[in-house]
Amino acid sequence: MAGNSFGHLFRLTTFGESHGKAIGGVIDGCPAGINLDLESIQNELNRRKPGQSAIVTQRKEPDTVEFYSGIFDGKTTGTPIGFAIHNTNQKSKDYSHIKDSYRPSHADYVYDKKYGFRDYRGGGRSSARETASRVVAGAIAKQLLQGVHINAFVSQVGKMKLEKPYQELDFDQIESNAVRCPDQATASKMEDYIKAIKKEGDTIGGVITCVAQNVPIGLGEPVFDKLHAELGKAMLSINAVKGFEYGSGFKGVQMKGSAHNDQFNEDGTTKTNLSGGVQGGISNGMDIYFNVAFKPVATVLQAYETIDNKGNKVQTQGKGRHDPCVVPRAVPIVEAMTALVLADFQLLARTNKK
Amino acid sequence: MAGNSFGHLFRLTTFGESHGKAIGGVIDGCPAGINLDLESIQNELNRRKPGQSAIVTQRKEPDTVEFYSGIFDGKTTGTPIGFAIHNTNQKSKDYSHIKDSYRPSHADYVYDKKYGFRDYRGGGRSSARETASRVVAGAIAKQLLQGVHINAFVSQVGKMKLEKPYQELDFDQIESNAVRCPDQATASKMEDYIKAIKKEGDTIGGVITCVAQNVPIGLGEPVFDKLHAELGKAMLSINAVKGFEYGSGFKGVQMKGSAHNDQFNEDGTTKTNLSGGVQGGISNGMDIYFNVAFKPVATVLQAYETIDNKGNKVQTQGKGRHDPCVVPRAVPIVEAMTALVLADFQLLARTNKK
Amino acid sequence: MAGNSFGHLFRLTTFGESHGKAIGGVIDGCPAGINLDLESIQNELNRRKPGQSAIVTQRKEPDTVEFYSGIFDGKTTGTPIGFAIHNTNQKSKDYSHIKDSYRPSHADYVYDKKYGFRDYRGGGRSSARETASRVVAGAIAKQLLQGVHINAFVSQVGKMKLEKPYQELDFDQIESNAVRCPDQATASKMEDYIKAIKKEGDTIGGVITCVAQNVPIGLGEPVFDKLHAELGKAMLSINAVKGFEYGSGFKGVQMKGSAHNDQFNEDGTTKTNLSGGVQGGISNGMDIYFNVAFKPVATVLQAYETIDNKGNKVQTQGKGRHDPCVVPRAVPIVEAMTALVLADFQLLARTNKK
Amino acid sequence: MAGNSFGHLFRLTTFGESHGKAIGGVIDGCPAGINLDLESIQNELNRRKPGQSAIVTQRKEPDTVEFYSGIFDGKTTGTPIGFAIHNTNQKSKDYSHIKDSYRPSHADYVYDKKYGFRDYRGGGRSSARETASRVVAGAIAKQLLQGVHINAFVSQVGKMKLEKPYQELDFDQIESNAVRCPDQATASKMEDYIKAIKKEGDTIGGVITCVAQNVPIGLGEPVFDKLHAELGKAMLSINAVKGFEYGSGFKGVQMKGSAHNDQFNEDGTTKTNLSGGVQGGISNGMDIYFNVAFKPVATVLQAYETIDNKGNKVQTQGKGRHDPCVVPRAVPIVEAMTALVLADFQLLARTNKK
Repeated sequence: MAGNSFGHLFRLTTFGESHGKAIGGVIDGCPAGINLDLESIQNELNRRKPGQSAIVTQRKEPDTVEFYSGIFDGKTTGTPIGFAIHNTNQKSKDYSHIKDSYRPSHADYVYDKKYGFRDYRGGGRSSARETASRVVAGAIAKQLLQGVHINAFVSQVGKMKLEKPYQELDFDQIESNAVRCPDQATASKMEDYIKAIKKEGDTIGGVITCVAQNVPIGLGEPVFDKLHAELGKAMLSINAVKGFEYGSGFKGVQMKGSAHNDQFNEDGTTKTNLSGGVQGGISNGMDIYFNVAFKPVATVLQAYETIDNKGNKVQTQGKGRHDPCVVPRAVPIVEAMTALVLADFQLLARTNKK
Repeated sequence: MAGNSFGHLFRLTTFGESHGKAIGGVIDGCPAGINLDLESIQNELNRRKPGQSAIVTQRKEPDTVEFYSGIFDGKTTGTPIGFAIHNTNQKSKDYSHIKDSYRPSHADYVYDKKYGFRDYRGGGRSSARETASRVVAGAIAKQLLQGVHINAFVSQVGKMKLEKPYQELDFDQIESNAVRCPDQATASKMEDYIKAIKKEGDTIGGVITCVAQNVPIGLGEPVFDKLHAELGKAMLSINAVKGFEYGSGFKGVQMKGSAHNDQFNEDGTTKTNLSGGVQGGISNGMDIYFNVAFKPVATVLQAYETIDNKGNKVQTQGKGRHDPCVVPRAVPIVEAMTALVLADFQLLARTNKK
Repeated sequence: MAGNSFGHLFRLTTFGESHGKAIGGVIDGCPAGINLDLESIQNELNRRKPGQSAIVTQRKEPDTVEFYSGIFDGKTTGTPIGFAIHNTNQKSKDYSHIKDSYRPSHADYVYDKKYGFRDYRGGGRSSARETASRVVAGAIAKQLLQGVHINAFVSQVGKMKLEKPYQELDFDQIESNAVRCPDQATASKMEDYIKAIKKEGDTIGGVITCVAQNVPIGLGEPVFDKLHAELGKAMLSINAVKGFEYGSGFKGVQMKGSAHNDQFNEDGTTKTNLSGGVQGGISNGMDIYFNVAFKPVATVLQAYETIDNKGNKVQTQGKGRHDPCVVPRAVPIVEAMTALVLADFQLLARTNKK
Repeated sequence: MAGNSFGHLFRLTTFGESHGKAIGGVIDGCPAGINLDLESIQNELNRRKPGQSAIVTQRKEPDTVEFYSGIFDGKTTGTPIGFAIHNTNQKSKDYSHIKDSYRPSHADYVYDKKYGFRDYRGGGRSSARETASRVVAGAIAKQLLQGVHINAFVSQVGKMKLEKPYQELDFDQIESNAVRCPDQATASKMEDYIKAIKKEGDTIGGVITCVAQNVPIGLGEPVFDKLHAELGKAMLSINAVKGFEYGSGFKGVQMKGSAHNDQFNEDGTTKTNLSGGVQGGISNGMDIYFNVAFKPVATVLQAYETIDNKGNKVQTQGKGRHDPCVVPRAVPIVEAMTALVLADFQLLARTNKK
């Protein structure tokens, strides 16, 4: 209820602050009998972790996941999977300067108002560190989703856009560069741009595109829990996300119905896919694709004026080790949340018919 | 679970197909003691109903809501509010042509695949007629949200955009024209454009902008149930919606953090509001504003080729009374869903502190 | 959340007060493709309705269920089933005497305290009339539960007990008498006793035993949602219920483990069934059986002293048409709630394995 | 959904098998600002832990709880409280004899059928070890429930009953003996009896009575989530529980309404309390009291015949360190579950009125 759980049948509950002892979670409802590849789970975490390249935060966090339950003889048992990632490299002193003051466009102010006080160290619960737990659960969801392929990649950094349609991209190239953009030429430019931004002590936003292929027909529920509505919520729940569009998205509003409609082939596939693989809230077997907009990280390493918790103006300076652009590290998070939504609906779809 | 409920504490469950006996719903968790203005509820329904102007579908449906429970002596009792809107003007014969064939970009095909068969009359459960129940519940939620102002309006039709920022608009003008665009000059152009589209037997998409003002600080939950994530899900669950963005949205990705951050005033308000009234998933007291993209209605009154449920090609022709552009009638739906989200979080916020 | 929904996947939400326009509900999550026998649904309602025999309340209520949605061509469509039972014979004047005063052992006092006021007519939402909606949903759940046999019967009225074990009873005899006790000799004595109680203007309690046979192995979830825990909650949620026990129940506490353990046969069945068909919260394929204790109805047709809402003593007199003993009419309610629990867990069990 | 969560607003999710690395859980929805007394949490755990007296299992488990999140500067922060209790003294070898065979009246057989295989070590997830997590959460719930007094005690062991009404007992004596029966004379007899049972290698059942005092008026929801229905579910979800009754319970069925009704005093309290502090599913401010029946522990240290997973008869012998009677150690579990239910409803009650 308080919003730390996601999913209906395949359900993740997370806990943990960035500078507490550990973050982690519980996955309830994972079916029994999945032969878990634990290494691939850790690999997904490694894709998200700080310090992996020159264009992300230089914090060193091993982000090693430890499983406590729900796995026996290498297989899921059907009972809840409890796990934790211990925090090992937290420098709480880095944050004493924000104890009594509010960073602009952070959650500091609203947490104080909502709860009466806050764990100010590193943003506490509002830190994107929480998303590591999502990556763990998403990696398990991927293993449940046999045959489904989920690929996210960076398609925009600042004003710099990857102009090719996803069908022309080689998803195997996503991990070949630090930006996680599958087009090498664009990736190089983006990387240079992020480095320049970093040098300024500034940050920049970006867009991640995600494509889910080979999704069975029939996932998603007709009214409130439409497939794209849950995907949208999933994405918007990731830190820094400001927008979500799927299929034709915001551009589709400019089209006429006669041009926008996806005509059928005789096998039920469609000639075009402006629907984005979802019709009436339900997957139709075509590729599901969507864009996720990330704002620039709010922590800039510059001097600025703000207020303290007494309402006084204070001068301060951004410190610490932060990402100049969040999208490269957010790619595995987008994939994880996609996998959670699809796994949940796949289980639910087992109950559609008598 | 099957997705016909929305909200946690203030919770709406809806039922009904477009051509069944009635649609309706149950609102559970509405606090006791609200003096309900029943007329204003019906007024909201009237804003959504067909036949209200020349640019919307000419179906005649009175859409009269009948309350069955939960109200006594003019006040909510704290028990569930059951209601129904009887279907009175359904012409099922209009739909015999789609019984065995699939309309492009409709839910016909996926319903058949998901459930094994479908109530094909008027789209059945996939019809936007279901949203009338949301408007009823939203109108009650508005009455719970004393002091909060929610205004939605049409800000784009096709490529035609309302270029003024919302702060320069007079929300009192929204209902003064058929398009529900508060800028009369733009509204006139949009209206003419929709009429032209209608004459072609075609349809066109659009964007609705919604502004919620005077929202208390502290609504929304930190992680998965962020305020904007629930708003996004709420909007994406409305028929024909393809995208959602709040605050700086997709444009915000192009900005640098130093420019994007909303600097504080001494009273906790912010000098700018690129955050869109939500920080870390929690309302900060500033205006909440967001855009919702609607695709063009899939039913075009033109001849087209499609397939039947045996996989054969069939020639068909769009019939019936349909909207050439969905956004004017969707304005009250957007407001209703906004109210449902805010009412739910307002109740939940009562449990934040000891 | 406010407690008017039951079930996770097969989920019933009810609404309605005893003297409002209608009671009813929404069943969400019912799988598509069930050929509904509507007559048998109404038959279940008739088993519950007032006025059916000399030992129950003489109110006349037709209790005709009207379905609004979710059924097409005689089959469930997978979309929510909305239904209403219109109230037709309410005599609200009967209740003006309790408008400002509190009947002992009723919900009057606590409703006023909890909600600030109440719909006092006929008990409002606290009336057992609400259970008619459960019977509708339970009747549909029974049709989903092909092959499962659920039989409830009256096993005790006051101190008068049916001493035979259920294995010796002929469940076909349950409906052969007004008490719904399958042993005719005991039934006659109970009937006479209830008539005598009625003549006194008094009421008496009773016990209903329920047996569910042919339940698949594996229903129920290991920890909080154990099969018997949900059955217990389901029964305790019925008006006037004071206790629940399954299998060996309260008597089992007196036994030693060596005697209480159910030894296995080679086919996995057990030689005894003190477990009551549930082990570790999960059905084991043996008969599930349990007892439900009902207190005497609180409305006695006698003079009594009570207090009004100002805290003044008032003299009053029970009026109206009430049941002298609730258990005969509660039999179909117990069956309905059992069916709801089993149907829900049967759907959930589809997700246990990969 | 898979049943490892309890509560709506104050919500506990648990994980862990008896012989895995750790058990633990996440408490979501705990309000911010509670000054947590961590020592009293550990004290509650110590009341439940093995090895504390001669009449309970002699396993040595420190059961030390480690908190990972949600607490800062000694206070709850409003964010989820993650915790773990590491398993330190598990002797998995003790259980190799049950790897392929099914212990009677345990969950072994149904787990294998439900999930396809099981973690057989120590009962895995079906072990009562899981309840330690409930005790942690219940101890925190108690600290939220300022002013409410919850006292559980052993009122029956086998046929040996504590015959005094609870009003005549001194709850301060509960912890003065190993049985947790507040009447010393009865406690001594029970203790001797349990020791004799233990010597036989056998086990015996018992009853725990729980009394919650000073509960605010208005907790509980009218229909499905009645206060006593949730209490019943809570208790029935504890391992080995076979029955639940509150107020007059099963004995109340023998009474006439005229005698069973609780007449009002002018202040709204009642002269008698056969209602058990709950009317219409809602607390009325009087003492809430109920009985919980526990069957004899299924593990007896005797030779017995059972079947293996191939359906062959096998001879085996109960081994390990087990409780001869579960009720003394279950007392804190009953209290914890009571606290969880009351805390949840107390938060929910904040939303009853406008």
